[in-house]
Amino acid sequence: MRARKKKWADNELLENELIFQNAAECKGKWEQIFKNAHPIALEIGCGMGSFIVESAKNKPDMNFIGLEREKMVIVTGARKIREWNESLEDSEGMLENVRFVLGDAAMLEDIIAPGEISRVYINFCDPWIRRRKWAKRRLTYRSFLDTYKRLLCEQGELHLKTDSAELFEFSANELLECGWRLNNLTLDLHNSQWAEGNVITEYEAKFAAKGMPIYRLEAVRED
Amino acid sequence: MRARKKKWADNELLENELIFQNAAECKGKWEQIFKNAHPIALEIGCGMGSFIVESAKNKPDMNFIGLEREKMVIVTGARKIREWNESLEDSEGMLENVRFVLGDAAMLEDIIAPGEISRVYINFCDPWIRRRKWAKRRLTYRSFLDTYKRLLCEQGELHLKTDSAELFEFSANELLECGWRLNNLTLDLHNSQWAEGNVITEYEAKFAAKGMPIYRLEAVRED
Repeated sequence: MRARKKKWADNELLENELIFQNAAECKGKWEQIFKNAHPIALEIGCGMGSFIVESAKNKPDMNFIGLEREKMVIVTGARKIREWNESLEDSEGMLENVRFVLGDAAMLEDIIAPGEISRVYINFCDPWIRRRKWAKRRLTYRSFLDTYKRLLCEQGELHLKTDSAELFEFSANELLECGWRLNNLTLDLHNSQWAEGNVITEYEAKFAAKGMPIYRLEAVRED
Repeated sequence: MRARKKKWADNELLENELIFQNAAECKGKWEQIFKNAHPIALEIGCGMGSFIVESAKNKPDMNFIGLEREKMVIVTGARKIREWNESLEDSEGMLENVRFVLGDAAMLEDIIAPGEISRVYINFCDPWIRRRKWAKRRLTYRSFLDTYKRLLCEQGELHLKTDSAELFEFSANELLECGWRLNNLTLDLHNSQWAEGNVITEYEAKFAAKGMPIYRLEAVRED
């Protein structure tokens, strides 16, 4: 069963033109790929794509790249786009502003050129909190922040959502120490002024159902 | 009984040379009052003085002004200093770096000259959260922040502690929007790297005993 599933995922990966497996060829060429010069947002760890697909519907004037390292997961995201587009009666409302990349944050500089994106989304990433030595694995550790800074255009933004108070605190301080400007910070997103327009991710729905607060912040690249 | 207590407070207010009732005469003269040019910290709403007295012991190279509007409360703070000093065998360790001012935040510009202080402490102030229209009363509302900016020297700091997630969130955003730089932000002070050296206030001890997290941040005047 597992092997069959894997084979299905492999086939879909090969066939689905929205997924790039070897995205090094895309570096510096995302405008050509999206066929327009709209600002590009990157979601690191897009999971099954709920967030990126909804965001793409809400923001037709923005392009979206979903980075995800799990094959089985990324094909589900890409399938959401196909199903949405096939459900439409005509081409109005077609989602043409989303692409997926199979990979993780370590390869970001191989697939995106400096200044090529205008926003990074990090939603409910693994907080890696139990051990201090794991801090370097957090997607808001300073070495990652430096990478995002290089990839983001001027005034480019990082948007973070998490259920972890520890990760939120760590991220806020790490961003501040690395010279980012914070904005629109909330310790309880769903009961805040930022609830309206918030696109809920798969994990977020689960955490919110348990009554857990969702932490969120925006950060702007200052230098 | 109440009248007697009040009378005692009135007498102590008059007699205690550490308390200024009409502090307008101090404006621009705090260096003379403290007889040195050490940096001056102001605590807005110093209550019974636990925080300011402990801070003054820990930081002999800093001067402290405690602002408090309740007579009965301020005399208790001033008494703590007298009792401490009288308990010493000689003048070593004497607290000469604390003064108290009877009043509230609305009168700050009458008692402190521009640039005269280097730090503002706000500890567990009333969060005024129930009604939106009360936001203006919060000690971190932008009009108050503007006042602190005028009174603080360059790179002067605001240190906030609160048990209220709402006030913390409001304050952080208000500070960011008013161009302050945040630092050393924590959602759980007592379990954070900033627990060591933290001077616990009267309210803080009560909240911590109930297992409530303490929120804290520092902000630096940027412009």
